[in-house]
Amino acid sequence: MQNKAPIGLFDSGVGGLTILKALQVVLPSENIIYFGDTAHVPYGNKSKTAVTKYSTEIVKFLENKKVKFIIVGCNTASALALPSIKKIAKVGLLGVLMPAAKQAVKTTKNGKIAVIATQATVNSNSYKNTISKLNKNLKVYQFACPLLVPLIEDKKLLKTLLPTMLKYYLAPVKKCGADTLILGCTHYPIIKNQIAKMLGSSVKLIDSAHNTALETKNILAQKKLLNTSKTKAKIRAYTSDAPKHFETLAKAILNQKSIKAELAK
Amino acid sequence: MQNKAPIGLFDSGVGGLTILKALQVVLPSENIIYFGDTAHVPYGNKSKTAVTKYSTEIVKFLENKKVKFIIVGCNTASALALPSIKKIAKVGLLGVLMPAAKQAVKTTKNGKIAVIATQATVNSNSYKNTISKLNKNLKVYQFACPLLVPLIEDKKLLKTLLPTMLKYYLAPVKKCGADTLILGCTHYPIIKNQIAKMLGSSVKLIDSAHNTALETKNILAQKKLLNTSKTKAKIRAYTSDAPKHFETLAKAILNQKSIKAELAK
Repeated sequence: MQNKAPIGLFDSGVGGLTILKALQVVLPSENIIYFGDTAHVPYGNKSKTAVTKYSTEIVKFLENKKVKFIIVGCNTASALALPSIKKIAKVGLLGVLMPAAKQAVKTTKNGKIAVIATQATVNSNSYKNTISKLNKNLKVYQFACPLLVPLIEDKKLLKTLLPTMLKYYLAPVKKCGADTLILGCTHYPIIKNQIAKMLGSSVKLIDSAHNTALETKNILAQKKLLNTSKTKAKIRAYTSDAPKHFETLAKAILNQKSIKAELAK
Repeated sequence: MQNKAPIGLFDSGVGGLTILKALQVVLPSENIIYFGDTAHVPYGNKSKTAVTKYSTEIVKFLENKKVKFIIVGCNTASALALPSIKKIAKVGLLGVLMPAAKQAVKTTKNGKIAVIATQATVNSNSYKNTISKLNKNLKVYQFACPLLVPLIEDKKLLKTLLPTMLKYYLAPVKKCGADTLILGCTHYPIIKNQIAKMLGSSVKLIDSAHNTALETKNILAQKKLLNTSKTKAKIRAYTSDAPKHFETLAKAILNQKSIKAELAK
């Protein structure tokens, strides 16, 4: 019975839909409940206390929906709130930081890893600390890119401004000499190709979405919680503010035409 | 006794501090309580329901602090929530829309007024409707500039990107032929000089901060609520998320070095 229960996945807004997409590829039979905390979006400029409070409420909401596992599909929430919400969660929890950090550690050849993320994620030093625990000899360079999320959400302006903005944000990434760059925010995979083009093939990009989906598969298999049913998987989405803006954004920036969200109560 | 009571002023974040500055010039004797709703910032991409809920809670908070009058120092909240909160407020309320609209109607010579604002303010058509009520023969052109607020809050990137971004956002303003432009967001006065430079002297800029301060003075005088005391005015600030980020921003973008905020409870 529990195998058929949905996976819960949450983010401050639409960014976590990049993980939903990856889950649909890696675990096509799994039912998923997505929660976009659009009443509080963005998390990237909020405090640890605030992000922990919002994440705690969402975990309770998802547990009420009888999820079997929860993915914290937001880098800021993973960085700031994961230790606290692990203490209260009744089901298994996975953040996006560890899968990305593990992949980066495997990938780097020169021992230098760069991370681009929101201001809050950078301030938390979570990527730095997580990578250090895996291998304390690696160097980690963190760069906050506070304007990338709003730019990605404005599709028209994106075309005009992205080259200038990436040139500005990626200059210190190039300068630090890292051969591996973690895209430390779930919005960034949307502009992965443009980042790759600007950095060239000598810098490998780590996209937390795909690695988180793979890690979820491993964990569910270990816990014997994989859904082996052949019936079509159900995706449900909830938002904490009116769903319309969320649905429009999901369509515009992620081509998710079929996403219909309900207002969470 | 009530004359010495403070004026309440709120915004989603630091933007409303432009009004605080104007109040300090126009009404230097008035005590002020500022509320920055940093747990929900920005309002510009939130729904009417959400913004009304947040504004209602803030009005109650300010009334508990015994304010004599409340300024809705945020264009989005004025556009979306003012009619609802007027129903519940026990003290007088003033939004930033009407003072700016009145000034624009007085200023225009060719009958064409442009407004730049957040997406939510534009969607609400509040400026269009307010101006129509004052003079239905005027033409109003509204333009959403969703990236201006996050850019203004990133002082380093501002220097690099503002010319490109203003060129993009102001092109349709120039094209519509308006001779008057309302800066329909409390952040925009911070980049007033750059906007003026790009549009030239044929377009007059309407800054809601100064006009709102003047209108507040008129209303308080009519109600016999002006503070005529000679003791130094007290400014207190509260935020709904941890105050540190608010204080840093206030210092960086508004040069408000002395602003210390408390977490609202």
